[in-house]
Amino acid sequence: MKNLIIASTSTIHNSDYLEYLLPTLKEHFKAIKTLLFIPYARPSGITHDEYTARVANAFQKIDIEVKGIHEFEYPIEAVLSAEGIFTGGGNTFLLVKQLYSNNIITAIQQAANNGIPYLGCSAGSNICGLTMETTNDMPIIYPPSFKTLALVPFNINPHYLDPTEGSTHMGETRETRINEFHTLNSQPVVGLREGSWLEVKNNTIILKGNLTARIFEQGKAAIEVDPDTDLSYLK
Amino acid sequence: MKNLIIASTSTIHNSDYLEYLLPTLKEHFKAIKTLLFIPYARPSGITHDEYTARVANAFQKIDIEVKGIHEFEYPIEAVLSAEGIFTGGGNTFLLVKQLYSNNIITAIQQAANNGIPYLGCSAGSNICGLTMETTNDMPIIYPPSFKTLALVPFNINPHYLDPTEGSTHMGETRETRINEFHTLNSQPVVGLREGSWLEVKNNTIILKGNLTARIFEQGKAAIEVDPDTDLSYLK
Repeated sequence: MKNLIIASTSTIHNSDYLEYLLPTLKEHFKAIKTLLFIPYARPSGITHDEYTARVANAFQKIDIEVKGIHEFEYPIEAVLSAEGIFTGGGNTFLLVKQLYSNNIITAIQQAANNGIPYLGCSAGSNICGLTMETTNDMPIIYPPSFKTLALVPFNINPHYLDPTEGSTHMGETRETRINEFHTLNSQPVVGLREGSWLEVKNNTIILKGNLTARIFEQGKAAIEVDPDTDLSYLK
Repeated sequence: MKNLIIASTSTIHNSDYLEYLLPTLKEHFKAIKTLLFIPYARPSGITHDEYTARVANAFQKIDIEVKGIHEFEYPIEAVLSAEGIFTGGGNTFLLVKQLYSNNIITAIQQAANNGIPYLGCSAGSNICGLTMETTNDMPIIYPPSFKTLALVPFNINPHYLDPTEGSTHMGETRETRINEFHTLNSQPVVGLREGSWLEVKNNTIILKGNLTARIFEQGKAAIEVDPDTDLSYLK
């Protein structure tokens, strides 16, 4: 039993934090009053308190109270007793390092598999995949493993970005990077553009939002899939 | 005693592989006939043989023979007996994994500190810093450590990229990422644009090429430095 929203980004251009997702979140979290927020990814290095305040401000609009996991003495218990969980974006390496340091990988898996509604954005979505090896982030800290929550049987690439037409930059495009990933790893990768998310209900995984997503499978040409496509076949 | 070229990229737009650097490399490698190439970073997943052939083709123009380290039975001995060393670009995670797997970190440090001429491009430049934690690459494989060669007392960010004006993409800019690095780490970061390189002679480090570089020090505003600036003060 799973009930997850795995979003490419928290924020789309010219819009407030989480604004584009609020109608969806109102439905997703309709049964809960309090949300446990995991602020470990610390975008731009902001503090856990600052980050939690930003999230509380957004969720206030749909009458949900937010508590940061750093406010609890026992993080494992905080996860296991949560009504709902949101892991925010920022740096995936820092997030994963902190998940392991606080020993809450198994607890989040257990909560998610018990049907507790979960929301991930960006780094918080990356960790829903088998590994964090398709993150776009800079490796600013060394985590004890790249293995993540495996709530879906593939990897996520959030903020998926098409090649810039006419670019003179010689750094790798996102597609080149994911193809390099597939020279060493076999699981599929879902490239989620900003504004897209995956809705996971039990074992059904549907692409949501208005944009197509790009699906990379080892040994195959990448394909575009439309909104509302069922991606449960990917593994 | 050091004699290094640490280049942002092997290739600039509208130019052949290493072409813009060949006059510099002719001087840098003037005393040697054979170059040891380290192809471990495998850009786009090409094989060690394919990558070495590409490099041999470029160095043929300045009458230097190239041998790939994978052609030797004993990689440590190959490094320690090399006349000159070139580590090519590709994926830094894969490169660092292979450097540790083949146990050649210390050997390269020893060779470089003995004055053997060294060239790094992109991932091969990243590893010249204290850590690989300011790479732009995707973490497609888990290395046993992020610590690298420490041939210079700071970190390198190759392919340094300015923010795209008018971009609607919400992913972090390069500067944001490096600032996040500095929330957890204290060493300076040199952002080298494509076409720039550092020339290291003993303990003197000079910015070369026609472009400015961007210097990030913890707790200070980033600055631009001109070509031929002496960066030996950074640590």
